Amino acid sequence: MRNIRLTVSYDGTRYFGFQAQPQKNTIQDKLEEAIAVLTGERGRLISSGRTDAGVHARGQVVNFHTASSIPGHRWAMALNTRLPEDIIVTCSEEVDPAFHASYQAERKTYRYTINIGKYRDVFRQPFQFHHPTKLDLTAMEKALNCLVGEHDFSSFCSRKSTKTSHVRTLFEARMEKEAPPEHATAADHPGVVHFFFSGSGFLYNMVRIIMGTLIQIGEGKKDWRDMRSILEGRDRSLAGPTAEARGLMLWEVKYEFVLDS
Amino acid sequence: MRNIRLTVSYDGTRYFGFQAQPQKNTIQDKLEEAIAVLTGERGRLISSGRTDAGVHARGQVVNFHTASSIPGHRWAMALNTRLPEDIIVTCSEEVDPAFHASYQAERKTYRYTINIGKYRDVFRQPFQFHHPTKLDLTAMEKALNCLVGEHDFSSFCSRKSTKTSHVRTLFEARMEKEAPPEHATAADHPGVVHFFFSGSGFLYNMVRIIMGTLIQIGEGKKDWRDMRSILEGRDRSLAGPTAEARGLMLWEVKYEFVLDS
Repeated sequence: MRNIRLTVSYDGTRYFGFQAQPQKNTIQDKLEEAIAVLTGERGRLISSGRTDAGVHARGQVVNFHTASSIPGHRWAMALNTRLPEDIIVTCSEEVDPAFHASYQAERKTYRYTINIGKYRDVFRQPFQFHHPTKLDLTAMEKALNCLVGEHDFSSFCSRKSTKTSHVRTLFEARMEKEAPPEHATAADHPGVVHFFFSGSGFLYNMVRIIMGTLIQIGEGKKDWRDMRSILEGRDRSLAGPTAEARGLMLWEVKYEFVLDS
Repeated sequence: MRNIRLTVSYDGTRYFGFQAQPQKNTIQDKLEEAIAVLTGERGRLISSGRTDAGVHARGQVVNFHTASSIPGHRWAMALNTRLPEDIIVTCSEEVDPAFHASYQAERKTYRYTINIGKYRDVFRQPFQFHHPTKLDLTAMEKALNCLVGEHDFSSFCSRKSTKTSHVRTLFEARMEKEAPPEHATAADHPGVVHFFFSGSGFLYNMVRIIMGTLIQIGEGKKDWRDMRSILEGRDRSLAGPTAEARGLMLWEVKYEFVLDS
């Protein structure tokens, strides 16, 4: 059996998340269906990790085993013609039979986007959380810096989590204000802020709970210094609410090395 | 009666164009409904011009007369809460009673966007025409330059046009390759090209027929030098097909001066 690795972008708006679920419309189902139509094989995909309902991906990584002789680089185009418009395979390659998209993921990056402008952006609203009232970005950035490193992130983890350890390492957490496009006027492009989180792995709802807490800090409902005590408290009830799914995007997954077959 | 001017952005995907039509879902209908809900007045909007089904707008300009005492700058927010998610008023102001969004428009700019990358862009596909095979952008740019100036644009006008004169002035026609965003990889952002057209006025389907012709030139089906003879021929059958609506956006409308009331 050959092992094929895909990089996948999707607009998660219409889906019940990545992972296959009975009677639900998911990204995994669509990918597995497209593979089945192409090869006649009904197998299970392995992904770098699930994404929740309404969450998007720029660079989700998956792999699957197949007896098909389709060359590695041909899969992207072949699957794209069999996928809905809002899911696109942007890269395909044959990899070492041992490659596993979940176990071998070394660094995952998520991006959370807030439109801090007065008005919604009609062209990008499915991918932004809109927050038209004032946010103290300086305080949010300070709070963000408290999160970097190895910590028990229990305060930023859904109570539905089944993991035994909530210790994770956040390699990087940074804020980036988007440069307005060349032709922008203040009215049509008043401000977009991206938050990038790179870590070894993420807990259930972790980025969205961090963002919900950061937004409360930006609104002045919490002080930026509270971030550390929330983290140290290891109690979900100390943190803010889970921020809206639409602002979240699985940005990139990195692997130490992928052996080409 | 006071005269209110609005700047409006919309995602035209779900609409039968701007202009009100019986039994059809249009942008104008939605704006007039929102004004009626707010004021109890059922009036007609004046726009800078219609846009076709599926065409978008960044900066459409409209005006209407009202007996309401709502201050000019308040209309944007008041209407936005009563409009669907894909239509947004980005600016509102009270203007001179004589201001007319159509008659006084001095310069209109349209943008047409082609994704020349291998794959669709899941996040921006409603606003791009996807052309994954090779386009000769240099030839397209040369052809574009032939169009600037005052010309009879009959070759680039739908046969459904009812205008008596097809002479229009194109002030500017230019191509702009989009700079990839900071975090882009070749796979997810392989290339986007924008074409900007600024003129005194545009004929029915004019930008889309120009684009259909430019695309044929880019594909090598026509020579860039043909652009001049097509223009001089004043015959719709000489030009290329009407390009897809989704790539087109009414970018901006300028007025010599708008007197604040």
